[in-house]
Amino acid sequence: MHSIKTDIAWSAPDSITAFGRDLPSEILGHVSFGDMAFLEITRRIPDANESRMFNAMLVTLVEHGLTPSTIAARLTYLGAPEAMQAAVAAGLSGLGSVFVGSVEGTAQMLYEVMPAPDAAADLPALAQDIVERFAARKAILPGIGHPFHKPIDPRTPRLIAIATETGFAGPYIALVQQVAAEAERQKGKSLPVNATGILGALCCEMGFDWRVCRGIGVMARAVGLVGHILEEARNPIARQIWLQAEQAATEHFRADPAATTG
Amino acid sequence: MHSIKTDIAWSAPDSITAFGRDLPSEILGHVSFGDMAFLEITRRIPDANESRMFNAMLVTLVEHGLTPSTIAARLTYLGAPEAMQAAVAAGLSGLGSVFVGSVEGTAQMLYEVMPAPDAAADLPALAQDIVERFAARKAILPGIGHPFHKPIDPRTPRLIAIATETGFAGPYIALVQQVAAEAERQKGKSLPVNATGILGALCCEMGFDWRVCRGIGVMARAVGLVGHILEEARNPIARQIWLQAEQAATEHFRADPAATTG
Amino acid sequence: MHSIKTDIAWSAPDSITAFGRDLPSEILGHVSFGDMAFLEITRRIPDANESRMFNAMLVTLVEHGLTPSTIAARLTYLGAPEAMQAAVAAGLSGLGSVFVGSVEGTAQMLYEVMPAPDAAADLPALAQDIVERFAARKAILPGIGHPFHKPIDPRTPRLIAIATETGFAGPYIALVQQVAAEAERQKGKSLPVNATGILGALCCEMGFDWRVCRGIGVMARAVGLVGHILEEARNPIARQIWLQAEQAATEHFRADPAATTG
Amino acid sequence: MHSIKTDIAWSAPDSITAFGRDLPSEILGHVSFGDMAFLEITRRIPDANESRMFNAMLVTLVEHGLTPSTIAARLTYLGAPEAMQAAVAAGLSGLGSVFVGSVEGTAQMLYEVMPAPDAAADLPALAQDIVERFAARKAILPGIGHPFHKPIDPRTPRLIAIATETGFAGPYIALVQQVAAEAERQKGKSLPVNATGILGALCCEMGFDWRVCRGIGVMARAVGLVGHILEEARNPIARQIWLQAEQAATEHFRADPAATTG
Repeated sequence: MHSIKTDIAWSAPDSITAFGRDLPSEILGHVSFGDMAFLEITRRIPDANESRMFNAMLVTLVEHGLTPSTIAARLTYLGAPEAMQAAVAAGLSGLGSVFVGSVEGTAQMLYEVMPAPDAAADLPALAQDIVERFAARKAILPGIGHPFHKPIDPRTPRLIAIATETGFAGPYIALVQQVAAEAERQKGKSLPVNATGILGALCCEMGFDWRVCRGIGVMARAVGLVGHILEEARNPIARQIWLQAEQAATEHFRADPAATTG
Repeated sequence: MHSIKTDIAWSAPDSITAFGRDLPSEILGHVSFGDMAFLEITRRIPDANESRMFNAMLVTLVEHGLTPSTIAARLTYLGAPEAMQAAVAAGLSGLGSVFVGSVEGTAQMLYEVMPAPDAAADLPALAQDIVERFAARKAILPGIGHPFHKPIDPRTPRLIAIATETGFAGPYIALVQQVAAEAERQKGKSLPVNATGILGALCCEMGFDWRVCRGIGVMARAVGLVGHILEEARNPIARQIWLQAEQAATEHFRADPAATTG
Repeated sequence: MHSIKTDIAWSAPDSITAFGRDLPSEILGHVSFGDMAFLEITRRIPDANESRMFNAMLVTLVEHGLTPSTIAARLTYLGAPEAMQAAVAAGLSGLGSVFVGSVEGTAQMLYEVMPAPDAAADLPALAQDIVERFAARKAILPGIGHPFHKPIDPRTPRLIAIATETGFAGPYIALVQQVAAEAERQKGKSLPVNATGILGALCCEMGFDWRVCRGIGVMARAVGLVGHILEEARNPIARQIWLQAEQAATEHFRADPAATTG
Repeated sequence: MHSIKTDIAWSAPDSITAFGRDLPSEILGHVSFGDMAFLEITRRIPDANESRMFNAMLVTLVEHGLTPSTIAARLTYLGAPEAMQAAVAAGLSGLGSVFVGSVEGTAQMLYEVMPAPDAAADLPALAQDIVERFAARKAILPGIGHPFHKPIDPRTPRLIAIATETGFAGPYIALVQQVAAEAERQKGKSLPVNATGILGALCCEMGFDWRVCRGIGVMARAVGLVGHILEEARNPIARQIWLQAEQAATEHFRADPAATTG
């Protein structure tokens, strides 16, 4: 049986210690919010390159406008404006396998064939191996292609540029690009790496466990969800989204009331 | 009826715009995670002083070790490790009136008597007014005193020092200190400003609506909760917390089974 | 300090006891789901009239089609179909002051002027007192009028009929009807009691603390939300609701891109 | 693209229709809460035997005392007593693969080898097949054995008795018992069917999709969680659970402060 302990933080009447550092004198005013997020994940302060890359990774996931997650949060706020934390919680609850999940899916996919960074790896062969494995189990390759952003996800080249500047454009970034190239070759259509694919590869470059990927998404989206709730408080739209959906459904009933007995 | 619109972000096939800026070229790599949080709240990029102060405010709220919120998140992860976002959501759901609420309580208390910063205000008189109002309705003054951190909350002087360095040690910081002094005078015991009291005053110094206070807490705790879930995955303690609680409850039943019919 | 105890249930290796009863032999097969809900609230088994009335109260709140709550749940399921419990949780999170809150608002309103059932009370005078109090603080009377169901909420007469049959049509039902009549007289428009108003009055008739009202709503909606998630799995609509909202918002941006800098 | 429609319910100004029935006149007062839950799952009213069996299934899952889920809900309520719906939501969020998941795990396991009820099936051969499959992939058999209830889960024989009385003791109940017998034979220790195993088999007997299993658990636990929150409001224990956990963790730090740098 594990005993009840945590290495994260503890308090004495006159001190608070987090990750082995005195929170007031060593963290507050010295560590930015993004670097604090890195500290929560790795238990150490990032260096300048790590900080720049990791902050860009987090910021990429903060905002994508009206999504299922931000709409769910706004609808929840409509019913319980006294509990905005619950609205953010509702929005986070949908960050599962379908949307944010492709970051961790990419990381798992890359780690599976290259468990540790290997500069000498035969990347085209590994990419071919990946594409064939996924085809064999009829699974969709994560991090590749985008239903809306065409010809490419505009975040992809920017994240690669920052990775190059900070020294994180290593074998996993190269591998995920090879996977996309191989998929394009086999499918005969354009399937460039999207933002979640690059983010998954960057998690590998940083040595993060694949479980960390979803955590980064959750941190980032919590920030964006608060922004959406504050806008909803100023300029509400959730009621209108609800009423339009209800009206559409009601028209179906009116057109075919017998459908309800189905 | 409001139409369905948001000023936060929108996408075209080849671009993503957030807060009127091109996300890839103007935000990624230029705006840190903490500054992105500021952008979500204010719709503008902070200057250097705002950034330093705001990041310190966020970081203050990230981590306080084992709290009801972090334990609830860990217990949720124990049952659904495949949905870590739901565990973070469960942890956020408790950030209501009792804990994080004292930040917004302090901001509301200060705004009520000084709706806009007023360098010429008679702070002792305003503080006396506040303390008497709260006494009249038998309400607890928010942001004052601490059940555990004695003689003072170690975060308080540090936050004041950063506020002084960045130019945010204005009339609201002075007022909340006067409130504490007045409360100490009337109650005859030490009641210094705690971290949430300073954070509430800083939200006023920054001109934030009091609703923003809880949003800052939610952003910050989401980051801390992810850290706790990742630690729980490495070194689980939730099961032990559950079993100890269940054992304590069972001993009560064994000692007095008839109690259950009560 | 309270010790850790619960009177609800405990287990031994060979037995499970709930509310002082042997769960397998005294509850399973003997107590229906609705009566188990009554047992959770009151710690006793309902008699036949209580059971009929309480089941009707619960059932009233199970289903109202596409609501902010059911849409939020469906949008959450869209992102995390592997965690349907989190989708239901997201849907429940919005059952706050705005929608389900009017049941407890009605109960509080009635208890405030008639703390215990009083067959001799001057109901018109109490109703006038209530309407004037709410007018004085510019508050909306809960449980009265309905934005959509006109001339009356069709659930109202049915709930009153069941209350009459089961002996629960007492002074609180009469009082809430007087409140509606008085409001109609003062406002000069039709303001009949709606379903939440009758449910609030019925909670008073049953002697429930007003906090119980929201609990009844939460129990009932959880059942309805599961139904909506199962339908969403068979016949998904959340993606379409999302895309229509996003498209409407995008049209605003296209029409006036400068708005985003606001 | 699916259009926005639901077959569950719709409203006109003077009527509410649910599952093709007039809610006020055909459901309220006629359909119990448990039968309404059945209606949400199957879109039809259960007959008397179905009702008795299904209500017993739901009631089995309502209450098991202090669990990770009920403790998480109580801790959430401690921080946000104004939002009890969020506390229930937090409690539901943990009903994932580990606890309630074994009901659906059992149903999937049984459906995999017997997709439709087959009175002529060679049950010992099917059971052997199941046990070998699970052994081959080193997976734990769901619904078998219990860490605490010994020699048997006291709910198991009672659920089987009700199944026999109501005509639901069919081939799936027989098969899950064969699986337990085969597992006992191979492992050489007592591994009886537990309550979740019987419930999973009963879901198969009722012809429910395996996804429905978790829905039944969510409905049932929502009822139990409301009971725990109402008890927490009367007799709070969450603070004590938190403080004991925090104290245990603090003792570890005091004993070995250097551990925090790990």
